[in-house]
Amino acid sequence: MRDQYHEELDGIGATLVEMAGLAGQAMGNATVALLGANLGVAEEVIASDKAIDQLQHDLDARTVDLMARQQPVAGDLRTLVASLRMSADLERMGDLANHVAKVARMRYPGIAVPSELVEIIEKMAVIAEILSKKVAVIIRDRDTEKALQLGDDDDEMDILHRRLFVALLDPAWPHGNEVAIDMTLIGRYYERFADHAVSVGRRLYYLVTGEYADI
Amino acid sequence: MRDQYHEELDGIGATLVEMAGLAGQAMGNATVALLGANLGVAEEVIASDKAIDQLQHDLDARTVDLMARQQPVAGDLRTLVASLRMSADLERMGDLANHVAKVARMRYPGIAVPSELVEIIEKMAVIAEILSKKVAVIIRDRDTEKALQLGDDDDEMDILHRRLFVALLDPAWPHGNEVAIDMTLIGRYYERFADHAVSVGRRLYYLVTGEYADI
Repeated sequence: MRDQYHEELDGIGATLVEMAGLAGQAMGNATVALLGANLGVAEEVIASDKAIDQLQHDLDARTVDLMARQQPVAGDLRTLVASLRMSADLERMGDLANHVAKVARMRYPGIAVPSELVEIIEKMAVIAEILSKKVAVIIRDRDTEKALQLGDDDDEMDILHRRLFVALLDPAWPHGNEVAIDMTLIGRYYERFADHAVSVGRRLYYLVTGEYADI
Repeated sequence: MRDQYHEELDGIGATLVEMAGLAGQAMGNATVALLGANLGVAEEVIASDKAIDQLQHDLDARTVDLMARQQPVAGDLRTLVASLRMSADLERMGDLANHVAKVARMRYPGIAVPSELVEIIEKMAVIAEILSKKVAVIIRDRDTEKALQLGDDDDEMDILHRRLFVALLDPAWPHGNEVAIDMTLIGRYYERFADHAVSVGRRLYYLVTGEYADI
C-alpha cells in the first residue's frame, strides 16, 4: 500500500496527464472550428481554456504545498520542480489552442484558411494531436525513449510550417494581407504548440535521467 | 551578518535582476539591428542569447539545490518557486529578442521594417526597454506597487500592436506579403516580450503578498 505522500505525488502525475489530454483535445477542436467556421466549437474551446488554467493553478498549489509539507528528498523534489514546469508548458499549449479558436471566431462566418492551405493546417493539427497524446503517455510511463522521439514529430511540424511560409510568399498569392497575417499567426500557434510538447518531453527526460536530452 | 543560506537566496534574486537587464539589453540591441540593418549587432544578440540561457540554467540548478539542501520554510519556498518561474519568463524574453535579431539578419542588407512603420517599432522597443528596467527594479526591491503598474505599459504595447495591424491591413499596403509576414511576427515578438515582463511582475506580486494581482 502506498502512503499518502506517494499517492499525492501520483496524483500530480495524473493531473499532468489530464492536462495533456485537454490541451490536445482543445487544439483538435480549435482546428475543427477553424476549418469548418464552427462558432459553437470555437466558443467551447475558448471557454475550456479557463478550465485548463484552473487545473494548472490547483496543480501548482498542490505541488508547492507538497514541497512545503513533506520536505521531499532530492529525487522527489526533482519530480515536483519538473511538474511545475510541465504544467506551465501544458497550460501554454491550451492558450495556443485558444488563440486558434479566437481566429476562427473572429473570421466567422468566413473561414480563415484558404482552401489550398487546408491540407497543411490539417496535417499540422494531426501532428499537434499526436504530440499531445504521446506527451500524456510519456508522463504516465516516464518513458524517456518515447520522449526522445518527439523530435521527429516536431521536425515534421517544422517542415509543414516552412511549407506554409512558401505558400504565403508565393508572388501570385491571391488572398491579400489579412489572410496572410491570419495564416502567419495560425502557423506559429501550431508550431509553438509542438515546441511546448517537446519541452515537456525534455523535462521528463531530465527528471528521469538527470541528464539533458538532445531533442 | 547574514548566514550562507540567506546569502544564497539573495544571490538568486541578484541573478534574476541581471537576467532582466540582459533581456532588456538584448531587445534594445535587436531593435538597433532591425532598424539599422546592422548585421554585427544582430549576430551579437543571437550569440548573447546563449549566455542568458546558461544563466537561467545555472540559476535554476542553484535554486533547486537550495531547496534540496535547506528544506526551506513556506515563505522561502515560495520565493524559490517564484524564482524558477521568473527565470523562465526572463529566458523567454531573451529568446524573443533573439527572434527579432534573426529577422534583422535574414533581411540583411535590406531593412525588414518599411519606413512608415519604423516609428511604431521604435515605440514598441522603448516600452520593451522600460518594462525590463522596471522588472529589474521590481525584483530587486520586491516592489508590489510598481508591479501593479506594469499593466499600463503593457496596455500601451497592445495599442501599438493594434496600430501595427491597422497599417498591415491597409488595402493600399504597398510592400507585399513578405514584409507583412515579417511585421506580423516582429510585432508579436515585442508584444510577447511585454507579456512575459508583466508575468514576472505578477509572480513577484504573488510571492510578496500571497495573492494574485489583477495585472
